[in-house]
Amino acid sequence: MTDESHDPWTTLSERRVYENPWIAVDHREVLTPAGSPGVYGVVRFKRVAVGVVPIDAAGQVRLVGQWRVPLGRYSWEIPEGGAEPGEPPAVCARRELAEETGLRAGCLQEILRLDLSNSSTDETAVLFLATDLTLGPAAPEDTEALAHRTISFAAALTQALTGQITDALSVAGLLCVCHMAKTAPNSPAGLDPALAKIMLRGL
Amino acid sequence: MTDESHDPWTTLSERRVYENPWIAVDHREVLTPAGSPGVYGVVRFKRVAVGVVPIDAAGQVRLVGQWRVPLGRYSWEIPEGGAEPGEPPAVCARRELAEETGLRAGCLQEILRLDLSNSSTDETAVLFLATDLTLGPAAPEDTEALAHRTISFAAALTQALTGQITDALSVAGLLCVCHMAKTAPNSPAGLDPALAKIMLRGL
Repeated sequence: MTDESHDPWTTLSERRVYENPWIAVDHREVLTPAGSPGVYGVVRFKRVAVGVVPIDAAGQVRLVGQWRVPLGRYSWEIPEGGAEPGEPPAVCARRELAEETGLRAGCLQEILRLDLSNSSTDETAVLFLATDLTLGPAAPEDTEALAHRTISFAAALTQALTGQITDALSVAGLLCVCHMAKTAPNSPAGLDPALAKIMLRGL
Repeated sequence: MTDESHDPWTTLSERRVYENPWIAVDHREVLTPAGSPGVYGVVRFKRVAVGVVPIDAAGQVRLVGQWRVPLGRYSWEIPEGGAEPGEPPAVCARRELAEETGLRAGCLQEILRLDLSNSSTDETAVLFLATDLTLGPAAPEDTEALAHRTISFAAALTQALTGQITDALSVAGLLCVCHMAKTAPNSPAGLDPALAKIMLRGL
């Protein structure tokens, strides 16, 4: 039986080598679980990533498009943001959804928690399903030059499965909501079965 | 119409602030899309993340458990690794599956491509489904103190949906394979319908 509470790595030294308002990087001299000397760079995130799958009454998904600097290319995604330290992820989800799309969620439901890159970073993500949507004014941050697109759930899922949507939060969120839609008739606490039926048209 | 080929950010300067065998960190002075001055830290990954969902003839999934240093906790996941520069992801997938579990895949199918953290890193992942499995010797790297667990597909999916499995590659991979299993009867190129039926027992 493995002792899952035991850290098999030994840290010999650690120093901070980089920091900005969003991330910090710590360099460690270590001994591996086998006892060999090595190094480990740990990227620490100051915010929790938050993503929202917004589904309207017609079973459509609102997507946002933006240039992603690290990838050097454009990306279509579900609305996303970062929860400030101490900010509950659900509060961040409502805020980012409103800022990026103008949409207000009558119903917001947490659906998944993810560790995004656990070999190198401590970044975690919390994903939500937003339904019962109403439209108000949008107010994107000035770092964001956002485009908008509303497509059927079936089209969005197909884009995730065929490599047109590749953002991890979006792909995992859309797949999870698809699973929720397919199991809705047997899952009283989940998605409204009538909405689920509309969403699954064309799949 | 948005010009998706246009980078709305201006890079004023860039310098490398950290590098190890796996990642490098570049610090940029920038102008945001709105023209405001700012900074951007880009974490560059030298390897492509690769994950494999291994499903045996009984519809069971092989998982591996290990301590994840950046998170400071234990994590149960699908077999994963990093493709060396120039190594095709499918070759890496077969190698990591064999090294970590001893399993050889008679059939290996690419199922998803992901950008894991596109606000801060350029890390991408390629996910595979491995079936027609046979067992040979395992040979984990000395950085890996791995435990093994074989559970039903339904149990693995439930763990992903309830926060017991949180690794992003594992959650996305399990959800994708579930979708493939549910659509198998209508998808001749996908999962074998007889195996899909076994996998979906208990879901």
